[in-house]
Amino acid sequence: MYENTYYSDSVHGPYEFFDAGDFVLEEGGCIRDLKIAYAVYGNLNTAKDNAILVPTWYSGTSKVIGELFVGTGRALDPDKYCIIIANQIGNGISSSPHNTPAPFDMGKFPLIQIGDDVRAQHKLITEHFGIDQLELVISGSMGAQQTYEWAVRFPDVVKRAAAIAGYAKNSDHDVLFAQTLIDAITSDPAWNAGWYKSNEDVHNGLRLHARLFAVMGWSTEFFRQEKWRDLGFASLEDFQTDFTEAYFTPMDPNDLLCMLGKWQRGDVSRMTNGDLPEALGRIKAKVYVMPIDSDMFFVPSDCKLEQELIPNSEFHELHSIAGHLGLFGVEPEFYQAIDSHIERLLAYEP
Amino acid sequence: MYENTYYSDSVHGPYEFFDAGDFVLEEGGCIRDLKIAYAVYGNLNTAKDNAILVPTWYSGTSKVIGELFVGTGRALDPDKYCIIIANQIGNGISSSPHNTPAPFDMGKFPLIQIGDDVRAQHKLITEHFGIDQLELVISGSMGAQQTYEWAVRFPDVVKRAAAIAGYAKNSDHDVLFAQTLIDAITSDPAWNAGWYKSNEDVHNGLRLHARLFAVMGWSTEFFRQEKWRDLGFASLEDFQTDFTEAYFTPMDPNDLLCMLGKWQRGDVSRMTNGDLPEALGRIKAKVYVMPIDSDMFFVPSDCKLEQELIPNSEFHELHSIAGHLGLFGVEPEFYQAIDSHIERLLAYEP
Repeated sequence: MYENTYYSDSVHGPYEFFDAGDFVLEEGGCIRDLKIAYAVYGNLNTAKDNAILVPTWYSGTSKVIGELFVGTGRALDPDKYCIIIANQIGNGISSSPHNTPAPFDMGKFPLIQIGDDVRAQHKLITEHFGIDQLELVISGSMGAQQTYEWAVRFPDVVKRAAAIAGYAKNSDHDVLFAQTLIDAITSDPAWNAGWYKSNEDVHNGLRLHARLFAVMGWSTEFFRQEKWRDLGFASLEDFQTDFTEAYFTPMDPNDLLCMLGKWQRGDVSRMTNGDLPEALGRIKAKVYVMPIDSDMFFVPSDCKLEQELIPNSEFHELHSIAGHLGLFGVEPEFYQAIDSHIERLLAYEP
Repeated sequence: MYENTYYSDSVHGPYEFFDAGDFVLEEGGCIRDLKIAYAVYGNLNTAKDNAILVPTWYSGTSKVIGELFVGTGRALDPDKYCIIIANQIGNGISSSPHNTPAPFDMGKFPLIQIGDDVRAQHKLITEHFGIDQLELVISGSMGAQQTYEWAVRFPDVVKRAAAIAGYAKNSDHDVLFAQTLIDAITSDPAWNAGWYKSNEDVHNGLRLHARLFAVMGWSTEFFRQEKWRDLGFASLEDFQTDFTEAYFTPMDPNDLLCMLGKWQRGDVSRMTNGDLPEALGRIKAKVYVMPIDSDMFFVPSDCKLEQELIPNSEFHELHSIAGHLGLFGVEPEFYQAIDSHIERLLAYEP
């Protein structure tokens, strides 16, 4: 446990904490006083039937998710809905390796699965808010992994779901890619099995991780068109240093590794002894499966195969030239397209 | 300079050596007694007008190139053509960091460009063989980079050219990817700026490099269909260790870095002050541009843009589910398709 000012209220707030108590994990560990940080936009109505849950993605917090997804007049309208954004375990705001007291800090933080996040969020939704059913669970990337987990694990609680740019069960290819991100950090000798003094000590590992993330995260076309110019960067090298590396180097290596482990092993068929059709067949929600056409992490063809296993589902491919990182919203039309799909989804009544 | 038994005649032979003399390099260095290893299939006719040149790709040698491209009854038929396969500088057989005597060995091996390879091969073709014009220059990947360099640099010497799965000018995206491969090796402390005792010392860097190569080299679909089973592997992990890591770990880290630097900076417009249309406009050869549809290193859309700049050229996309590494020939139809294109190209008379 050390002080990392990047994970502060001033950078990522406002948010509140839900204490999930002593939380026993799928893999057998236990987090004492598990803290789930969450942000709320809008008000829960008396019937408690206007709630939307948005889990966070890899390296993201409730702040960026709120900025990208929520707005008056948009699909996720806080004047209409109570939008709860739950920070995933390990994202540096909720309980994470770097902010957990000894002896479970740093290199001893227990192994987490996406199922743990979703069970903790379920406690937040039912025990703290007293909500029986969510109008919608929606998010992208690791947020989509949590969305699928929600729909399979708690089919009666999820009325609608939108999984953007993510898999219900991670692909072998993405397992290998996630492993390279893990290796990039852990191969830095300064990582020292998780026992460094500061994230800054591990900056070489974080930089290599960042550069790998950029290669698979954006698209060939993004670089060919030099779209980084639109984002205000002077050259490719400037972009790689002042955006790619600058984005990840303030973060905590163990926190990233905690999330990477969940991302890599994300698989709803863990609930059905490896039977993916059975797991996805359990879903009662109306589901929109929304991959990004140029995504190299979670490719549309694999998303389509999953969508075909979900009873009441539709496939809506999103266009972006920015690859997976189209999720960053570098093209205004991208979230406009999401909004127009989600408005239709929210208008759907089972 | 150390003994690396992987780079031996018994593994990669037979081949002969051409001594290109004291060879001054584009970047200002000089290699004393530059050795270009080459293998010949078939016989040069009296008119010396039946020669085909095939440069090697990243990590490959004349042996694998010969096995994949050459055969009686095939397009590159040794009963008809004299097929010369030239090992690129740094591939461990031709002059390379690990086999060059001090003081230019290991970490002091000079910086090489693809233009250096092509000028050395030109000496081999003209001075040693006395050939005025090549019927065809053909190869894949870094071999395609050399093929483009040949067609631009020596337009009167190249009658036909086939560039498979490679760019004339490397893309920004591929520059970033190549950098991650470089970083994977150089971030291993055992690399020690190139001054290790044996490739085995740097095995962690070589393994990470190998795993990165696999993620971008194969395709998502290759892994989804578990095509590694057809290659005789028991599990994904077995494949990653016994193929991916086993393929690269016997190789020399500095040799790979020498080739990676050339790959990364490959750009025919170095000859025309950065003017790519002018460079490609110089080509007199009939050119087939042949990307692989699932290739993540060299994507078809970028190959198409280059093809449109080449006067007498055709675009023929190859199908493989194996991504760039379809070049390894895991699908028999892949080289059958190449052969049928090349037969047509060889039948073409300007």
